[in-house]
Amino acid sequence: ALKKHILVIPGDGIGTEVTTWGKAVLEAIGQKFGHEFTFDEALMGHAGIEATGNPLPDETLAKAKASDAILFGAIGHIKYDNDPSAKVRPEQGLLKIRKELGLYANLRPIMLFDELLDASSLKPEILKGTDILFFRELTGDVYFGEKKRSEDRNTASDLMIYSRYEVERIAIKAYEAARVRGKRLCSVDKANVLESSRLWREVVQEIAKQYPDVETEHMFIDNAAMQLVKNPKKFDVVLTANLFGDILTDEASQIAGSMGMLASASIGDGTGFFEPIHGSAHDIAGQDKANPLASILSVALMLEISFGLKEEAKLVTSAVDKALKDGYRTGDIADANTDKSKILGTKAMGQKVLEYL
Amino acid sequence: ALKKHILVIPGDGIGTEVTTWGKAVLEAIGQKFGHEFTFDEALMGHAGIEATGNPLPDETLAKAKASDAILFGAIGHIKYDNDPSAKVRPEQGLLKIRKELGLYANLRPIMLFDELLDASSLKPEILKGTDILFFRELTGDVYFGEKKRSEDRNTASDLMIYSRYEVERIAIKAYEAARVRGKRLCSVDKANVLESSRLWREVVQEIAKQYPDVETEHMFIDNAAMQLVKNPKKFDVVLTANLFGDILTDEASQIAGSMGMLASASIGDGTGFFEPIHGSAHDIAGQDKANPLASILSVALMLEISFGLKEEAKLVTSAVDKALKDGYRTGDIADANTDKSKILGTKAMGQKVLEYL
Ligand SMILES: CC(C)[C@H](C(=O)O)[C@@H](O)C(=O)O
Ligand SMILES: CC(C)[C@H](C(=O)O)[C@@H](O)C(=O)O
Repeated sequence: ALKKHILVIPGDGIGTEVTTWGKAVLEAIGQKFGHEFTFDEALMGHAGIEATGNPLPDETLAKAKASDAILFGAIGHIKYDNDPSAKVRPEQGLLKIRKELGLYANLRPIMLFDELLDASSLKPEILKGTDILFFRELTGDVYFGEKKRSEDRNTASDLMIYSRYEVERIAIKAYEAARVRGKRLCSVDKANVLESSRLWREVVQEIAKQYPDVETEHMFIDNAAMQLVKNPKKFDVVLTANLFGDILTDEASQIAGSMGMLASASIGDGTGFFEPIHGSAHDIAGQDKANPLASILSVALMLEISFGLKEEAKLVTSAVDKALKDGYRTGDIADANTDKSKILGTKAMGQKVLEYL
Repeated sequence: ALKKHILVIPGDGIGTEVTTWGKAVLEAIGQKFGHEFTFDEALMGHAGIEATGNPLPDETLAKAKASDAILFGAIGHIKYDNDPSAKVRPEQGLLKIRKELGLYANLRPIMLFDELLDASSLKPEILKGTDILFFRELTGDVYFGEKKRSEDRNTASDLMIYSRYEVERIAIKAYEAARVRGKRLCSVDKANVLESSRLWREVVQEIAKQYPDVETEHMFIDNAAMQLVKNPKKFDVVLTANLFGDILTDEASQIAGSMGMLASASIGDGTGFFEPIHGSAHDIAGQDKANPLASILSVALMLEISFGLKEEAKLVTSAVDKALKDGYRTGDIADANTDKSKILGTKAMGQKVLEYL
């Protein structure tokens, strides 16, 4: 039995609603398997700004560093989105915690839930068999390069920048994963135009030599965005930079018809950070409409990756699977064939998963 | 009757094969309508490097500036793609001509060909009714910002940079187009993270005020990549920066199932530049397999946009339409239902379109 301290950071919008159920699942697993999970909670994003003026309050960062794993909800608020001159923004909290915790590798598994095949806009025959694991670099690129605004405010820039060690460490993680999966790795860049991409490609080519058992392909980002739609099955592990990964993983989650279902793990030097791919969805916040399954599946990733608890992780995933197999859906994944009485709110769906546990 | 001088730049790979038919269509239109079209030809890309060491030979640039419009094929060669340290690259030719001719606005209409609905990986009911016009900024962004490599070669960067006037001039073009189309404009950026995107959003918000009849929406690039798959119909005019436009237009062309069918127009300060969206496709070059229709449809864009010849443009488009309606296909757009005897090579398809003209 393990003793672990977990920090829950609900964040903004539907973040509070969904992490409630992620936490409840952790508690249930703890009880069932005799693990001692303790919890704390902290603010980030718009919630952090409202309370302290800071999107990542010092207290949150301190608690984060002291915890064994972090369960995060979502970030962002429409209020800042249309105010390009806002000095303080919710997203800064997320970017800063990624940097401070050294979370350089963002793992995003794109899984298909057979029951949800019809929820995708892609034809089932194109989709069937898709199983992709993205490795998105998370603490470099144009996200963290120097930002400038000219004095007259008429020119603005962001520096897209990578150093060799940043590419190396995530490439190694991606190759290690490819080795125990489909043994294919596709590295995505724009090396025909960008110098930072040329460095990226050079380094990946070097690391590739250490993994002769993995088949490496290099693809330009425009082509990758296209191939994902054309033939998602052809991808196994996809390795890419921060910005390209942001774009491709959102596209891929929609292809899988599973935006509300997908979880991600950010790992690196220390504490792991687990969150849904979906955003703060203010339009449905507080209405018991959000899908808690991505947060629950984030917990499965936490159990497996941060705590090494494979059996526990499997139990969580299969509880979600069972709820789906028995026809239960939240609004976002319901379709014309869904039995109306089985369309559940956030709470009822969370409860359902607890029952199956 | 008009007198126009057109420069044909075949470029690399299948470029030569497809521009042959674009040019043939221009000749046919000239004869039919009594326009005097004269032609010249010039090298660019890998072809330029092989002949002169320069991906954009001086002679090509001089001829380009002296012409009334340019019909371009494709660029790129696999040889450079996997050699990140190559000093001279085919793509530099394309980037340089865009800059030298001031081609700041790249228009990419994403059209659906009813006959090709099944060629898309998207479900027909999701796709049907899609009609998007992209305005991709083409002479700024991280494509043209300063590129650096540290002396030890271990750090590389590209500057993502925009100035107000660059955003203004393309925003105005996009709004003018939206006004005579569906009156909706979606501007795509990453303003929650990037300073250059915040400037982009500020400027678009300002220009928007001059177009109260057009409904403006601002969307983050990750969300846009997702929404394009989820519900492509919701877009009318999409306005975006160079890099984001590169990614989104390739994704969208695949969504429309029409990579081999789509044309683009690059316009700005002077001579217009017309080319297919597809690349140089070296794997099928010289085998009479390339689809010439995108090059032919580029000619339709040239006739309309550079020469103001609407009737002539329409005739070209409807000749392509007729060939499709009568069941003719090149290999890339054929499917299980295609009559095998109607699958044509490049030449036969080009001839077909000439017949319908
Ligand atoms: C909220 C935003 C800063 C963030 C990102 O771009 O990284 C989000 O889109 C994500 O993918 O986690
Ligand atoms: C060949 C390449 C430099 C080019 C670009 O990225 O602009 C191409 O992908 C395009 O979209 O025209």
